[in-house]
Amino acid sequence: MPETITDPRDPRVADFHDLHAGDRRPGTERGTGPVVVEGVTAVERLLGSGLRVRCVYGIPGRVGALDVPAGVPVYEADKWVLSETIGFRLTRGVLASCERPVPPPLAHVLVGANRIAVLEGLNDHENIGSIGRSAWALGIDALLLDPTCADPYYRRSVRVSMGHLLTTPLRVLTDWPGELDQVRAAGFTTVALTPGADVDLRSLDPAEHPRTALLLGAEGPGLSDAALAAVDVRARIPMRPGVDSLGVAAAAAVAFAQLR
Amino acid sequence: MPETITDPRDPRVADFHDLHAGDRRPGTERGTGPVVVEGVTAVERLLGSGLRVRCVYGIPGRVGALDVPAGVPVYEADKWVLSETIGFRLTRGVLASCERPVPPPLAHVLVGANRIAVLEGLNDHENIGSIGRSAWALGIDALLLDPTCADPYYRRSVRVSMGHLLTTPLRVLTDWPGELDQVRAAGFTTVALTPGADVDLRSLDPAEHPRTALLLGAEGPGLSDAALAAVDVRARIPMRPGVDSLGVAAAAAVAFAQLR
Repeated sequence: MPETITDPRDPRVADFHDLHAGDRRPGTERGTGPVVVEGVTAVERLLGSGLRVRCVYGIPGRVGALDVPAGVPVYEADKWVLSETIGFRLTRGVLASCERPVPPPLAHVLVGANRIAVLEGLNDHENIGSIGRSAWALGIDALLLDPTCADPYYRRSVRVSMGHLLTTPLRVLTDWPGELDQVRAAGFTTVALTPGADVDLRSLDPAEHPRTALLLGAEGPGLSDAALAAVDVRARIPMRPGVDSLGVAAAAAVAFAQLR
Repeated sequence: MPETITDPRDPRVADFHDLHAGDRRPGTERGTGPVVVEGVTAVERLLGSGLRVRCVYGIPGRVGALDVPAGVPVYEADKWVLSETIGFRLTRGVLASCERPVPPPLAHVLVGANRIAVLEGLNDHENIGSIGRSAWALGIDALLLDPTCADPYYRRSVRVSMGHLLTTPLRVLTDWPGELDQVRAAGFTTVALTPGADVDLRSLDPAEHPRTALLLGAEGPGLSDAALAAVDVRARIPMRPGVDSLGVAAAAAVAFAQLR
């Protein structure tokens, strides 16, 4: 049975205090600490994921509809108390927190994947979230992030991904772009998506490249010279003449669909 | 020469007062009133568009770099005054306002287009903006919106579109879905994008459908039954089994690329 929270500062719901405070939980280093998950769809995905859930917190109507595994603390509160806990008016009505997924070794990420996306320098949480959602839907099996990307487990990334970032095999690389050598050694064709490339992405026959790693860089700067130098192929999405670029999340979706 | 603004409430920059106030300019009906354009790229696109620019306002460094047509008032201010005018801290440093584009008659929109996108029930300005950006980049020649879509000329839509919504032929339909008959009569194959369809979008050969109108609905509800009943083809983007949907902006980009 859910326990009722009446004090917004109740330490039992400390994971959710002041969610607007920044891109990390108070008292933790960036890229560490519990992950906050918002909304019914993402919370349901979390509850079915096997990840270690710390607690669930929401209004009774939302919390009561969830299938929460035994042993997970469940707290409910009215909308006012819930809003006071998180620091803003909540429209989604339910949250959960979980331990940060333990990153699998790179070799483990690669062994089960045929299509991976590699993100460099993406500093916008919502773009990472959108890419995470599209990636899973469009057949990308795993994600690799360079060390300068924003935190894929920050709540806004997770929310925009509809929770898929929590369950997609994902690793933040430490040796960049050095670790791309391991990706290539595992048989992946490495493809950099870059507007200036000569190769039309549509000319890459997925059947000829059973394992493909697609590199995506941030809007504006694009991929670094080091990353561009480390790949097998540089390819572009054909665009209307004179148009400089797509948004990175849109470009990612187009490319993922193309690689299927 | 730019004139310097020292009072944030100066009536000469009234177009930019309190931009956070809502999705319309104070004193105007929703969907009317001047259009506010933010950021160098979008302002430059506006200045080159032939649309009637009301004024340009920004910090000296940004304003001075623009090629502003003769007769357009240009105002500059320091960051503090600029922020006080608009009601929040501005990071883009330059704004412009213009008269709302006059919607072309539907027949005029159709005559010059081979690929159009038709949006129904999209109530998120940023999704409309993202779709506007991708549409132009990926060869969509015009946009039609049903009467329930959010305002495509609201500043957040325009900003996310990088200004392309201002310059893409666009019309908000009044008779929906009745006016689709005119689209079909003009020789367009009407295609509804919907996850439950039997037809794989990739099986539609663009060469066999020289004119195509792609219908997109809002996340969640999707296209209305009336819209689905009015089209020639219902098609889906193939997805990983068990995944319900892509974000609408990502789905739009994938479909636009597919239709090229």
